[in-house]
Amino acid sequence: MSDAAVVTAAVLVIGNEILSGRTQDANLNYIAKGLAGVGVRLREARVVADLEGEIVAALNALRAKYDYVFTTGGIGPTHDDITSPCVAKAFGVALHHHPEAVAALASAYQPGQLNAARLRMAEVPLGAALIKTAASAAPGFRMENVFVMAGVPSIMRAMFDAVKHTLRSGPPVLARSILTHLPEGTIASGFAALQEKYPEIDLGSYPFFRQGKFGTSLVARGIDRARLDAAAGDIAEMIRALGGDAVEEDAS
Amino acid sequence: MSDAAVVTAAVLVIGNEILSGRTQDANLNYIAKGLAGVGVRLREARVVADLEGEIVAALNALRAKYDYVFTTGGIGPTHDDITSPCVAKAFGVALHHHPEAVAALASAYQPGQLNAARLRMAEVPLGAALIKTAASAAPGFRMENVFVMAGVPSIMRAMFDAVKHTLRSGPPVLARSILTHLPEGTIASGFAALQEKYPEIDLGSYPFFRQGKFGTSLVARGIDRARLDAAAGDIAEMIRALGGDAVEEDAS
Repeated sequence: MSDAAVVTAAVLVIGNEILSGRTQDANLNYIAKGLAGVGVRLREARVVADLEGEIVAALNALRAKYDYVFTTGGIGPTHDDITSPCVAKAFGVALHHHPEAVAALASAYQPGQLNAARLRMAEVPLGAALIKTAASAAPGFRMENVFVMAGVPSIMRAMFDAVKHTLRSGPPVLARSILTHLPEGTIASGFAALQEKYPEIDLGSYPFFRQGKFGTSLVARGIDRARLDAAAGDIAEMIRALGGDAVEEDAS
Repeated sequence: MSDAAVVTAAVLVIGNEILSGRTQDANLNYIAKGLAGVGVRLREARVVADLEGEIVAALNALRAKYDYVFTTGGIGPTHDDITSPCVAKAFGVALHHHPEAVAALASAYQPGQLNAARLRMAEVPLGAALIKTAASAAPGFRMENVFVMAGVPSIMRAMFDAVKHTLRSGPPVLARSILTHLPEGTIASGFAALQEKYPEIDLGSYPFFRQGKFGTSLVARGIDRARLDAAAGDIAEMIRALGGDAVEEDAS
């Protein structure tokens, strides 16, 4: 694939609860699929704790390396929600109460309920643009190439869906997947030869164990439909020549 | 918490399939819980693609920073399985066919079936010790402070379980969790005050949205049982003083 037009992204999951094992992350997969759908390549993900030094360092490493960074978590009203000040620090700008966010919160709460803790949810780095959704009065925000989103999956999804079509997109990555129960070791040599034949197509083998049987999905990804289809055809032919089953499956 | 005795770890998930959204990672949470159970703190996780430069750079960053690193994925027989050579490169050592791994594979396959691709699964960095399990004839391995494991969850779990009790362990982290349906913004001020009162206990608020209702889990973590219990008691009292429900829940 030509790299000139490729648009890249990283995800930064912020939260002790993922690292302690308390919570199974449910956001990375949603973002990964969503980015693939709009032609943006997710290249890396990191999970860091609720620690300023860790968040700032990871954010600066990722925003320098990729076109976009998506963060999840740490934008609520409690003392362990420190993503906004960390983003401000990473960009070297001050935090301010965004007037529009203050107004949104003010209209969401009863008189007297918009306390100092809740007002923290209106604090964003100077220069940030809000990500507003119907899912929450507390907004996410975009600061340059960094999108800051909630950790609660239902809110995160609304925020991600609100911004994904605003991204600069590259050519969409197309995929085909062939499932077989031949062992990977039987296929490996022929599959490697096909990777050499189709250097512009990424060929991956993803083994699984289901219902007491091992099998593998041979997945081809690329931006050229004709070459992709040719590669998928060759994969199925290679499997059948080895005496195996080859079934096209959903490649998403 | 005193940091002197703390033992830290990172997870490195290797695999295009996680970043493309094809596969939802199921290994990080298992490792996170397992490490917590043996008194090792998981401090960071990364997901990188099947690219040598990315794997080597992430591995070297993580193994220098944490006591242990656990990798998942990329140790099968196909051309996209490049974890072993990347680990060798990161450590600056050669790969070799480990005799014991070759023997294990030889006894697992019919005569003539142990082809070059399968023999790749016996290649480990010089100096590595095998991680053998009943789940797969192809072993994982340990190279200094790095544990290299399969990506298929059933095999990864067997490998992790085989090594977790060999780790140097710190004091176990104890946890208590109080669930309430009071809004986070109502609790935030009192909760922050409790964090100041109990600096050696980590207090986190993890909001959720279930059955149409928002709620939050207030989790206290620490190594001192008496202080943890005191903090949990204060949290419940604080919630009730605000007119809320406070229910102890499973904190694991």
